[in-house]
Amino acid sequence: MDIGFIGLGAMGAAMVANLLEKGHAVTVWNRSPTPVQDLAALGATPAGSVEKTLQGDVVFSMLADDQALQDVLLDSGALAKARPGLVHVNLATISVALAHDLVGRHARSGLGYVAAPVFGRPAVARTGGLNILAAGEAGAVARVTPLLEALAAKVWPMGEDPVRANVVKLAGNLMLVSAVEAMGEAAALGRAHGVPAGDLLDMLTGSLFAAPAYKIYAPMIVEERYQPAGFKLGLALKDVRLALAAGDAASLALPFASLARDSLLDAQAHGGSDQDLAALAGVSARRVSLADEA
Amino acid sequence: MDIGFIGLGAMGAAMVANLLEKGHAVTVWNRSPTPVQDLAALGATPAGSVEKTLQGDVVFSMLADDQALQDVLLDSGALAKARPGLVHVNLATISVALAHDLVGRHARSGLGYVAAPVFGRPAVARTGGLNILAAGEAGAVARVTPLLEALAAKVWPMGEDPVRANVVKLAGNLMLVSAVEAMGEAAALGRAHGVPAGDLLDMLTGSLFAAPAYKIYAPMIVEERYQPAGFKLGLALKDVRLALAAGDAASLALPFASLARDSLLDAQAHGGSDQDLAALAGVSARRVSLADEA
Amino acid sequence: MDIGFIGLGAMGAAMVANLLEKGHAVTVWNRSPTPVQDLAALGATPAGSVEKTLQGDVVFSMLADDQALQDVLLDSGALAKARPGLVHVNLATISVALAHDLVGRHARSGLGYVAAPVFGRPAVARTGGLNILAAGEAGAVARVTPLLEALAAKVWPMGEDPVRANVVKLAGNLMLVSAVEAMGEAAALGRAHGVPAGDLLDMLTGSLFAAPAYKIYAPMIVEERYQPAGFKLGLALKDVRLALAAGDAASLALPFASLARDSLLDAQAHGGSDQDLAALAGVSARRVSLADEA
Amino acid sequence: MDIGFIGLGAMGAAMVANLLEKGHAVTVWNRSPTPVQDLAALGATPAGSVEKTLQGDVVFSMLADDQALQDVLLDSGALAKARPGLVHVNLATISVALAHDLVGRHARSGLGYVAAPVFGRPAVARTGGLNILAAGEAGAVARVTPLLEALAAKVWPMGEDPVRANVVKLAGNLMLVSAVEAMGEAAALGRAHGVPAGDLLDMLTGSLFAAPAYKIYAPMIVEERYQPAGFKLGLALKDVRLALAAGDAASLALPFASLARDSLLDAQAHGGSDQDLAALAGVSARRVSLADEA
Repeated sequence: MDIGFIGLGAMGAAMVANLLEKGHAVTVWNRSPTPVQDLAALGATPAGSVEKTLQGDVVFSMLADDQALQDVLLDSGALAKARPGLVHVNLATISVALAHDLVGRHARSGLGYVAAPVFGRPAVARTGGLNILAAGEAGAVARVTPLLEALAAKVWPMGEDPVRANVVKLAGNLMLVSAVEAMGEAAALGRAHGVPAGDLLDMLTGSLFAAPAYKIYAPMIVEERYQPAGFKLGLALKDVRLALAAGDAASLALPFASLARDSLLDAQAHGGSDQDLAALAGVSARRVSLADEA
Repeated sequence: MDIGFIGLGAMGAAMVANLLEKGHAVTVWNRSPTPVQDLAALGATPAGSVEKTLQGDVVFSMLADDQALQDVLLDSGALAKARPGLVHVNLATISVALAHDLVGRHARSGLGYVAAPVFGRPAVARTGGLNILAAGEAGAVARVTPLLEALAAKVWPMGEDPVRANVVKLAGNLMLVSAVEAMGEAAALGRAHGVPAGDLLDMLTGSLFAAPAYKIYAPMIVEERYQPAGFKLGLALKDVRLALAAGDAASLALPFASLARDSLLDAQAHGGSDQDLAALAGVSARRVSLADEA
Repeated sequence: MDIGFIGLGAMGAAMVANLLEKGHAVTVWNRSPTPVQDLAALGATPAGSVEKTLQGDVVFSMLADDQALQDVLLDSGALAKARPGLVHVNLATISVALAHDLVGRHARSGLGYVAAPVFGRPAVARTGGLNILAAGEAGAVARVTPLLEALAAKVWPMGEDPVRANVVKLAGNLMLVSAVEAMGEAAALGRAHGVPAGDLLDMLTGSLFAAPAYKIYAPMIVEERYQPAGFKLGLALKDVRLALAAGDAASLALPFASLARDSLLDAQAHGGSDQDLAALAGVSARRVSLADEA
Repeated sequence: MDIGFIGLGAMGAAMVANLLEKGHAVTVWNRSPTPVQDLAALGATPAGSVEKTLQGDVVFSMLADDQALQDVLLDSGALAKARPGLVHVNLATISVALAHDLVGRHARSGLGYVAAPVFGRPAVARTGGLNILAAGEAGAVARVTPLLEALAAKVWPMGEDPVRANVVKLAGNLMLVSAVEAMGEAAALGRAHGVPAGDLLDMLTGSLFAAPAYKIYAPMIVEERYQPAGFKLGLALKDVRLALAAGDAASLALPFASLARDSLLDAQAHGGSDQDLAALAGVSARRVSLADEA
């Protein structure tokens, strides 16, 4: 199959490397050239233009946010020039509003559209161990499922409406951010009463909370190690904003999401948006330090 | 060993049944007589008075809250009449303030004191599958560890200061309540956009959140089934209040705990404190229903 | 002076009626025709098109939100055809982002731009009793100040940067929504302990809180009377979203704004966005009713 | 009339000085001796013991919190030795639970009990300008009203149940703390976009928010001047805790109160509980500084 891939950040590049390793031919494009060169060294074909990636059977996109997708695929006119019959697999976490818009645009252009947001960090993407949601017209999903299986430990079908996959992804990231905030507060409560964060989180993530969402972040929280970022704080904040907007559109208050957004803003003001999401726990940690000094 | 056991609610009774099944002799006391009779039928010895349970080698207590412990053991004068050398193992989740107080009282009376709060629901207690924290003077902990191991899948030593075990337990319950609230909001967000709660939570608790804390509550949330209660909402609310008080004592704000308390109060106003903690998710579910009707 | 006026909702129509009464000639335009006819009966000149309102000395706009302004003045091309030298007085509460954008556009087109957001309800606007902020280039502000004084009890100069007036307006509305939420919670606390809301709010708004923000909303809260709307809940929600966005752009968490947004969403899910902002207090009032029944 | 006065902190001492100036004879008691000596110099009679203050016609108490009242009047046995027929006027803000308890105790001892919590700062108390709530049995209230009028600009009758006055006071302080937090966030939003806090708050407290609650705190917020304290942060925190407890007892969530409590804890961790309540705005101010530096 003739595969295009647009967007070679940490996640996108890892997925392409994995596809190449498994013998797939991949034509790649990115706004900045360095990752294109790096992947070319591994066997990828540089595309020269976005349009080139849209002339094959399948194109994956993994762009940072709604604005990036808008710029690269829509405002540029590139999507309108795609080969009819192409299936576009959007791996990124986008807004529910844009998801609705994309469904209509692809249908009108005779293109397949599969929403396939992913759970996992770059190291997991590199080895094909992601969890990938897949929603879209059944035929389109069937065509790309073998490729998604190359990328994923498990593919989770979410029905025919692509928007559903986006909503599940946003809900999952809301749960993830909530788990990190909860660990941050729990660790702070322990520390305020003399229990080291490691003792507390080792126990809890070794029993009731023995799940990847907790086991990935607990060590970073314990060590207050927020670099390098596996999941950037700024992207987590973006996703919480999207969850809030999706709730707002349905007059649905999401109190933890609101509060998580505020804590993420505090964390961002402290160390910037390029820290790992684990830095969210630093907001609570600083509260304890302050009280200790007082 | 001569074992006493005070407090035969759902959890206490299940633990005693488990001990009896494993061949231990247990002298039991409870404020209301029915569970005493039930356990007597399984081989337990009714104590007649609280003091009687305090004359052996070890006494376990599993009382509902600070006030119950204050009434039964302190204001009654019973603890003051305990056999010197007795080790008191407090399985309940109590306030940090009372925990400090109990440490001093036992020391002055020549009694051992082990804080051993437990994680797990009655069915798990019945089969000895709990996770139990244990903190106290090393000799006392060593003496009761074989008994704790009869009750637990795993005993987690937490050092010599009993207060530490209480803090870890409160922090763990805060994380648990947070997980339930987060699932409730995630499910509501899905439902507001057409994704059934089951599809959403099956995916998330089958991947990133594949941990007992999530897997126990997700089915109840999906089915909006809040009876019978494994962990009563009113007790969860009590524990969140204790976590907030422990934070307050250290000038530490715990934003998720504050918000969880408010949501628990809403849930309690709706269906009462005897529902399962899962009813917390009903607060978000009602928000979606309302918006659907509007 | 040749005055145009765009946007004849409840506030805009009241302001125009006031200007007409004071002898000003006003050319008016609105997307729906009814208010144009009503004001024509009072002596206004119907404009036929938006462009017509932009050919005089001054044009006021009072459009519902960013999108309405974008549609009516920008995407339509109308602003680009305005008479050079015209001063545009924007009375509406818009986003900080759009405010920045408008400053640049007017400068490039040789137009004056004065941000003049208003505080006050329609009945107050009708009699020229508003409080109006005014920020913009000094010459432009000077030219329109006599007209603003016809509309206002007081004009508050806010300097040369129009964005400043928008920020003050958003901050003020955040304080207003906070005052209503606080009254709602206070009244609920009273009622839960047997104190009628009227007794409680009469005392407080007759002493420490004897200010318009409180005195306007207290009677509606006491009587649970949310129609007709002086300040629509949906518009208050819009403004809180804008305040949150302005905070977010500066990595600034605004915890009350987050919480107010969630309560406004609950109120909106109950009775719709056309209720008065006072309906926010209904969220707390329902909590008491529920607990009373339980 | 023979007047006793217990509790000579900043507020109590100012009230006594005002009573003395108006020609009343006052017998005073305080746990620490300095304020007793200061007031004796103005003409007050030192009591020697608490019991002495309880032998006249009326005794006022203005003790810091529930615990102080419990220690001084109840656990000491002093109240039990009061002259039958004495009317006790409790000026302090106490918990709803203690208010209920005191009603019963006074009735059983043949004492009158009037709950008369006050609004106002020490300087206002000194000149008799307080707002005072008054609730209790009608005859008792009638007897002490002339004295309350000496202390107050206005006395607000709140019916026969003393608890009602306590609830109104707690609700009022919740509104006050909310106003300060709202001003803090509004000022921060302005500053983050280049508007000095003074410009913003002068406008708002000169129009919609022209009430004492705002005008007292705005200058302190603008100048970030949190000493000397008129209303101590620690006492405001105490009152918010009491409001939360009163809500909790009725299964009533008070979201602004929860959030205000968390912000007050942050403020307390920064500068201590002896700062003025205005220091609450420092939490938001620090957020802006941090973002400015980032």
